[in-house]
Amino acid sequence: MFSQEIHDLATEVLEEARARHLMIATAESCTGGLISGALTEIAGSSDVVDRGFVTYSNEAKNQMLGVSAESLTRFGAVSEAVAKEMAFGALANSRADASVAVTGIAGPGGGSTDKPVGLVYIGVASQGCMPRAIKCQFGDIGRTQIRTATVITALTELLVEIRG
Amino acid sequence: MFSQEIHDLATEVLEEARARHLMIATAESCTGGLISGALTEIAGSSDVVDRGFVTYSNEAKNQMLGVSAESLTRFGAVSEAVAKEMAFGALANSRADASVAVTGIAGPGGGSTDKPVGLVYIGVASQGCMPRAIKCQFGDIGRTQIRTATVITALTELLVEIRG
Repeated sequence: MFSQEIHDLATEVLEEARARHLMIATAESCTGGLISGALTEIAGSSDVVDRGFVTYSNEAKNQMLGVSAESLTRFGAVSEAVAKEMAFGALANSRADASVAVTGIAGPGGGSTDKPVGLVYIGVASQGCMPRAIKCQFGDIGRTQIRTATVITALTELLVEIRG
Repeated sequence: MFSQEIHDLATEVLEEARARHLMIATAESCTGGLISGALTEIAGSSDVVDRGFVTYSNEAKNQMLGVSAESLTRFGAVSEAVAKEMAFGALANSRADASVAVTGIAGPGGGSTDKPVGLVYIGVASQGCMPRAIKCQFGDIGRTQIRTATVITALTELLVEIRG
Protein backbone atom coordinates (compact mmCIF):
# COMPACT_ATOMS: atom_id res chain seq x y z
CA MET A 1 0.00 0.00 0.00
CA PHE A 2 2.82 2.39 0.87
CA SER A 3 5.92 3.05 -1.25
CA GLN A 4 9.29 1.61 -0.29
CA GLU A 5 10.45 5.14 0.65
CA ILE A 6 7.59 5.60 3.14
CA HIS A 7 8.03 2.05 4.44
CA ASP A 8 11.74 2.64 5.07
CA LEU A 9 11.15 6.03 6.74
CA ALA A 10 8.45 4.58 9.01
CA THR A 11 10.78 1.72 9.95
CA GLU A 12 13.55 4.20 10.79
CA VAL A 13 11.23 6.37 12.93
CA LEU A 14 10.10 3.31 14.90
CA GLU A 15 13.64 2.02 15.42
CA GLU A 16 14.96 5.40 16.58
CA ALA A 17 11.99 5.94 18.90
CA ARG A 18 12.22 2.41 20.30
CA ALA A 19 15.96 2.82 21.01
CA ARG A 20 15.14 5.95 23.04
CA HIS A 21 12.03 4.45 24.72
CA LEU A 22 9.85 7.16 23.18
CA MET A 23 6.16 6.87 22.35
CA ILE A 24 4.69 8.69 19.35
CA ALA A 25 1.37 10.37 18.61
CA THR A 26 0.13 11.86 15.33
CA ALA A 27 -2.35 14.62 14.52
CA GLU A 28 -3.50 14.71 10.91
CA SER A 29 -5.73 16.91 8.88
CA CYS A 30 -5.02 16.78 5.12
CA THR A 31 -3.39 13.32 5.28
CA GLY A 32 -6.42 11.95 7.14
CA GLY A 33 -4.63 9.11 8.93
CA LEU A 34 -1.96 8.14 6.39
CA ILE A 35 0.97 8.98 8.71
CA SER A 36 -0.33 6.72 11.49
CA GLY A 37 -1.31 4.24 8.77
CA ALA A 38 2.29 4.18 7.51
CA LEU A 39 3.80 3.83 10.98
CA THR A 40 1.47 0.95 11.90
CA GLU A 41 2.22 -0.84 8.62
CA ILE A 42 5.43 -1.94 10.32
CA ALA A 43 5.09 -5.05 12.49
CA GLY A 44 5.75 -4.38 16.17
CA SER A 45 4.76 -0.71 15.94
CA SER A 46 2.44 -1.04 18.94
CA ASP A 47 5.30 -0.51 21.40
CA VAL A 48 5.98 2.93 19.89
CA VAL A 49 2.68 4.24 18.45
CA ASP A 50 0.34 5.35 21.21
CA ARG A 51 -2.49 6.96 19.25
CA GLY A 52 -3.46 9.21 16.38
CA PHE A 53 -5.89 12.08 16.01
CA VAL A 54 -7.53 12.54 12.62
CA THR A 55 -8.88 16.05 13.04
CA TYR A 56 -10.46 16.74 9.71
CA SER A 57 -12.95 19.37 10.88
CA ASN A 58 -12.14 22.54 12.85
CA GLU A 59 -14.37 21.28 15.67
CA ALA A 60 -12.23 18.14 15.87
CA LYS A 61 -9.02 20.20 16.02
CA ASN A 62 -10.47 22.18 18.89
CA GLN A 63 -12.15 19.32 20.79
CA MET A 64 -9.53 16.57 20.36
CA LEU A 65 -6.35 18.65 20.43
CA GLY A 66 -7.31 21.88 22.14
CA VAL A 67 -6.41 24.05 19.13
CA SER A 68 -7.72 27.49 20.05
CA ALA A 69 -10.77 28.91 18.30
CA GLU A 70 -8.85 32.18 18.10
CA SER A 71 -6.01 30.64 16.08
CA LEU A 72 -8.48 28.88 13.77
CA THR A 73 -10.31 32.15 13.13
CA ARG A 74 -7.34 34.51 13.03
CA PHE A 75 -4.79 32.41 11.12
CA GLY A 76 -7.00 29.71 9.57
CA ALA A 77 -6.76 25.90 9.91
CA VAL A 78 -3.83 25.84 7.46
CA SER A 79 -1.30 27.94 9.36
CA GLU A 80 1.93 27.70 11.30
CA ALA A 81 0.13 28.51 14.55
CA VAL A 82 -2.43 25.71 14.13
CA ALA A 83 0.24 23.16 13.09
CA LYS A 84 2.17 23.94 16.29
CA GLU A 85 -0.97 23.79 18.45
CA MET A 86 -1.94 20.46 16.87
CA ALA A 87 1.50 18.97 17.62
CA PHE A 88 1.36 20.32 21.16
CA GLY A 89 -2.21 19.03 21.61
CA ALA A 90 -1.23 15.55 20.44
CA LEU A 91 1.33 15.41 23.26
CA ALA A 92 -0.98 16.94 25.85
CA ASN A 93 -3.77 14.48 25.05
CA SER A 94 -1.74 11.27 24.94
CA ARG A 95 1.11 9.58 26.73
CA ALA A 96 3.44 10.24 23.81
CA ASP A 97 6.89 11.80 24.09
CA ALA A 98 7.04 13.09 20.50
CA SER A 99 4.40 14.08 17.97
CA VAL A 100 3.95 15.19 14.40
CA ALA A 101 1.01 17.17 13.02
CA VAL A 102 -0.01 18.18 9.52
CA THR A 103 -2.51 20.68 8.14
CA GLY A 104 -2.68 21.68 4.51
CA ILE A 105 -4.59 22.10 1.30
CA ALA A 106 -4.57 18.85 -0.70
CA GLY A 107 -6.95 20.20 -3.35
CA PRO A 108 -8.12 20.17 -6.02
CA GLY A 109 -10.43 22.81 -4.44
CA GLY A 110 -9.93 25.03 -1.41
CA GLY A 111 -6.93 27.00 -2.60
CA SER A 112 -6.54 30.78 -2.70
CA THR A 113 -3.84 33.29 -3.66
CA ASP A 114 -2.59 33.45 -0.08
CA LYS A 115 -2.97 29.73 0.55
CA PRO A 116 -2.61 27.81 -2.70
CA VAL A 117 -3.25 24.09 -3.22
CA GLY A 118 -0.13 22.25 -2.03
CA LEU A 119 0.54 24.50 0.96
CA VAL A 120 1.13 22.31 4.02
CA TYR A 121 2.36 23.13 7.52
CA ILE A 122 4.04 20.36 9.49
CA GLY A 123 4.29 20.71 13.26
CA VAL A 124 6.57 18.67 15.48
CA ALA A 125 6.80 18.60 19.25
CA SER A 126 8.47 16.67 22.01
CA GLN A 127 8.10 16.77 25.77
CA GLY A 128 9.89 19.75 27.30
CA CYS A 129 10.51 21.57 23.99
CA MET A 130 8.59 24.30 22.21
CA PRO A 131 6.74 22.97 19.15
CA ARG A 132 8.15 24.03 15.78
CA ALA A 133 6.56 24.16 12.32
CA ILE A 134 7.81 23.75 8.76
CA LYS A 135 6.10 25.38 5.79
CA CYS A 136 5.94 23.24 2.63
CA GLN A 137 4.84 24.38 -0.80
CA PHE A 138 4.40 21.26 -2.89
CA GLY A 139 2.45 23.05 -5.63
CA ASP A 140 -0.68 21.85 -7.42
CA ILE A 141 0.73 18.39 -8.19
CA GLY A 142 -2.46 16.44 -7.47
CA ARG A 143 -4.24 15.40 -4.30
CA THR A 144 -2.60 11.97 -3.88
CA GLN A 145 0.85 13.38 -4.65
CA ILE A 146 0.44 16.24 -2.15
CA ARG A 147 -0.66 13.79 0.56
CA THR A 148 2.21 11.41 -0.24
CA ALA A 149 4.78 14.24 -0.14
CA THR A 150 3.29 15.36 3.18
CA VAL A 151 3.63 11.87 4.71
CA ILE A 152 7.29 11.69 3.60
CA THR A 153 8.15 15.16 4.93
CA ALA A 154 6.28 14.57 8.19
CA LEU A 155 8.10 11.28 8.87
CA THR A 156 11.42 12.94 8.01
CA GLU A 157 10.78 15.84 10.41
CA LEU A 158 9.62 13.45 13.12
CA LEU A 159 12.87 11.55 12.70
CA VAL A 160 14.85 14.80 13.14
CA GLU A 161 12.83 15.56 16.28
CA ILE A 162 13.38 12.12 17.78
CA ARG A 163 17.11 12.24 17.12
CA GLY A 164 17.12 15.59 18.95
CA MET B 1 -1.86 4.82 -2.81
CA PHE B 2 -5.15 2.92 -2.47
CA SER B 3 -6.48 0.29 -4.88
CA GLN B 4 -9.30 1.10 -7.30
CA GLU B 5 -11.63 -1.11 -5.22
CA ILE B 6 -10.98 0.89 -2.03
CA HIS B 7 -11.18 4.18 -3.97
CA ASP B 8 -14.57 3.20 -5.43
CA LEU B 9 -15.92 2.03 -2.06
CA ALA B 10 -14.79 5.23 -0.32
CA THR B 11 -16.42 7.30 -3.07
CA GLU B 12 -19.69 5.36 -2.63
CA VAL B 13 -19.66 5.79 1.17
CA LEU B 14 -19.16 9.55 0.80
CA GLU B 15 -21.88 9.91 -1.84
CA GLU B 16 -24.44 7.92 0.16
CA ALA B 17 -23.62 9.78 3.38
CA ARG B 18 -23.73 13.16 1.63
CA ALA B 19 -27.13 12.38 0.09
CA ARG B 20 -28.47 11.66 3.60
CA HIS B 21 -26.65 14.62 5.24
CA LEU B 22 -24.75 12.24 7.51
CA MET B 23 -21.34 12.84 9.06
CA ILE B 24 -18.92 9.95 9.61
CA ALA B 25 -16.34 9.11 12.28
CA THR B 26 -13.86 6.23 12.35
CA ALA B 27 -12.17 4.35 15.20
CA GLU B 28 -9.19 2.24 14.16
CA SER B 29 -6.83 -0.10 15.88
CA CYS B 30 -5.18 -2.62 13.54
CA THR B 31 -5.66 -0.46 10.41
CA GLY B 32 -4.05 2.50 12.19
CA GLY B 33 -5.76 5.26 10.17
CA LEU B 34 -6.11 3.61 6.75
CA ILE B 35 -9.92 3.78 6.74
CA SER B 36 -9.96 7.53 7.38
CA GLY B 37 -7.00 7.78 5.01
CA ALA B 38 -9.04 6.11 2.26
CA LEU B 39 -12.14 8.24 2.86
CA THR B 40 -10.15 11.48 2.80
CA GLU B 41 -8.37 10.43 -0.41
CA ILE B 42 -11.57 11.51 -2.18
CA ALA B 43 -11.77 15.25 -2.92
CA GLY B 44 -14.60 16.99 -1.06
CA SER B 45 -14.60 14.46 1.79
CA SER B 46 -14.47 17.23 4.39
CA ASP B 47 -18.26 17.73 4.29
CA VAL B 48 -18.77 14.09 5.39
CA VAL B 49 -15.70 13.07 7.44
CA ASP B 50 -15.77 14.67 10.89
CA ARG B 51 -12.86 12.95 12.61
CA GLY B 52 -11.02 9.72 13.23
CA PHE B 53 -9.64 8.05 16.33
CA VAL B 54 -6.51 5.93 15.91
CA THR B 55 -6.60 4.02 19.18
CA TYR B 56 -3.61 1.75 18.92
CA SER B 57 -3.04 1.26 22.66
CA ASN B 58 -5.60 0.07 25.21
CA GLU B 59 -5.20 3.37 27.06
CA ALA B 60 -6.18 5.21 23.87
CA LYS B 61 -9.27 3.02 23.43
CA ASN B 62 -10.31 3.84 26.98
CA GLN B 63 -9.39 7.55 27.02
CA MET B 64 -10.46 8.57 23.49
CA LEU B 65 -13.49 6.31 23.03
CA GLY B 66 -14.57 5.36 26.54
CA VAL B 67 -14.06 1.63 25.96
CA SER B 68 -14.46 0.09 29.41
CA ALA B 69 -11.44 -1.30 31.24
CA GLU B 70 -13.65 -4.25 32.15
CA SER B 71 -14.27 -5.19 28.51
CA LEU B 72 -10.58 -4.79 27.66
CA THR B 73 -9.61 -7.09 30.54
CA ARG B 74 -12.46 -9.59 30.30
CA PHE B 75 -12.77 -9.98 26.51
CA GLY B 76 -9.49 -8.47 25.28
CA ALA B 77 -8.91 -5.62 22.84
CA VAL B 78 -9.74 -7.89 19.89
CA SER B 79 -13.33 -8.81 20.72
CA GLU B 80 -16.91 -8.21 19.65
CA ALA B 81 -17.59 -6.21 22.82
CA VAL B 82 -14.67 -3.83 22.27
CA ALA B 83 -15.49 -3.36 18.55
CA LYS B 84 -19.03 -2.32 19.51
CA GLU B 85 -17.81 -0.01 22.29
CA MET B 86 -15.31 1.59 19.92
CA ALA B 87 -18.03 2.27 17.32
CA PHE B 88 -20.33 3.65 20.01
CA GLY B 89 -17.51 5.76 21.46
CA ALA B 90 -16.70 7.25 18.06
CA LEU B 91 -20.27 8.53 17.86
CA ALA B 92 -20.38 9.68 21.47
CA ASN B 93 -17.13 11.65 21.10
CA SER B 94 -17.82 13.37 17.78
CA ARG B 95 -20.63 15.03 15.90
CA ALA B 96 -20.92 12.06 13.52
CA ASP B 97 -24.15 10.25 12.69
CA ALA B 98 -22.51 6.95 11.68
CA SER B 99 -19.26 5.27 12.61
CA VAL B 100 -17.12 2.26 11.87
CA ALA B 101 -14.53 0.71 14.18
CA VAL B 102 -11.96 -2.04 13.71
CA THR B 103 -9.87 -4.09 16.11
CA GLY B 104 -7.87 -7.13 15.07
CA ILE B 105 -4.63 -9.03 14.87
CA ALA B 106 -2.68 -8.01 11.77
CA GLY B 107 0.35 -10.10 12.67
CA PRO B 108 2.81 -11.50 12.06
CA GLY B 109 3.02 -11.82 15.88
CA GLY B 110 0.33 -11.53 18.52
CA GLY B 111 -1.81 -14.48 17.50
CA SER B 112 -3.00 -17.36 19.70
CA THR B 113 -5.15 -20.46 19.28
CA ASP B 114 -8.25 -18.58 20.42
CA LYS B 115 -7.38 -15.39 18.53
CA PRO B 116 -5.28 -16.21 15.48
CA VAL B 117 -3.57 -13.73 13.17
CA GLY B 118 -6.20 -12.44 10.75
CA LEU B 119 -9.01 -12.27 13.30
CA VAL B 120 -10.70 -8.85 13.05
CA TYR B 121 -13.89 -7.48 14.56
CA ILE B 122 -15.63 -4.64 12.77
CA GLY B 123 -18.12 -2.52 14.70
CA VAL B 124 -20.65 -0.19 13.12
CA ALA B 125 -22.99 2.25 14.79
CA SER B 126 -25.40 5.00 13.91
CA GLN B 127 -27.32 7.47 16.05
CA GLY B 128 -30.35 5.88 17.70
CA CYS B 129 -29.35 2.28 16.90
CA MET B 130 -27.54 -0.36 18.94
CA PRO B 131 -24.00 -0.93 17.63
CA ARG B 132 -23.40 -4.22 15.84
CA ALA B 133 -20.19 -6.17 15.17
CA ILE B 134 -18.99 -8.51 12.42
CA LYS B 135 -16.36 -11.18 13.01
CA CYS B 136 -13.85 -11.65 10.16
CA GLN B 137 -11.30 -14.42 9.85
CA PHE B 138 -8.97 -13.42 7.07
CA GLY B 139 -6.32 -15.99 7.99
CA ASP B 140 -2.57 -15.50 8.16
CA ILE B 141 -2.34 -13.89 4.70
CA GLY B 142 0.22 -11.21 5.65
CA ARG B 143 0.02 -7.94 7.56
CA THR B 144 -0.62 -5.64 4.59
CA GLN B 145 -3.21 -8.02 3.12
CA ILE B 146 -5.06 -8.34 6.45
CA ARG B 147 -5.15 -4.56 6.82
CA THR B 148 -6.32 -4.09 3.22
CA ALA B 149 -9.07 -6.71 3.62
CA THR B 150 -10.13 -4.98 6.84
CA VAL B 151 -10.40 -1.57 5.12
CA ILE B 152 -12.54 -3.09 2.34
CA THR B 153 -14.86 -4.91 4.75
CA ALA B 154 -15.15 -1.91 7.06
CA LEU B 155 -16.12 0.43 4.20
CA THR B 156 -18.61 -2.17 2.92
CA GLU B 157 -20.25 -2.52 6.36
CA LEU B 158 -20.31 1.26 6.81
CA LEU B 159 -22.11 1.52 3.47
CA VAL B 160 -24.72 -1.03 4.67
CA GLU B 161 -25.15 0.97 7.88
CA ILE B 162 -25.59 4.29 6.05
CA ARG B 163 -28.13 2.82 3.65
CA GLY B 164 -30.06 1.61 6.70
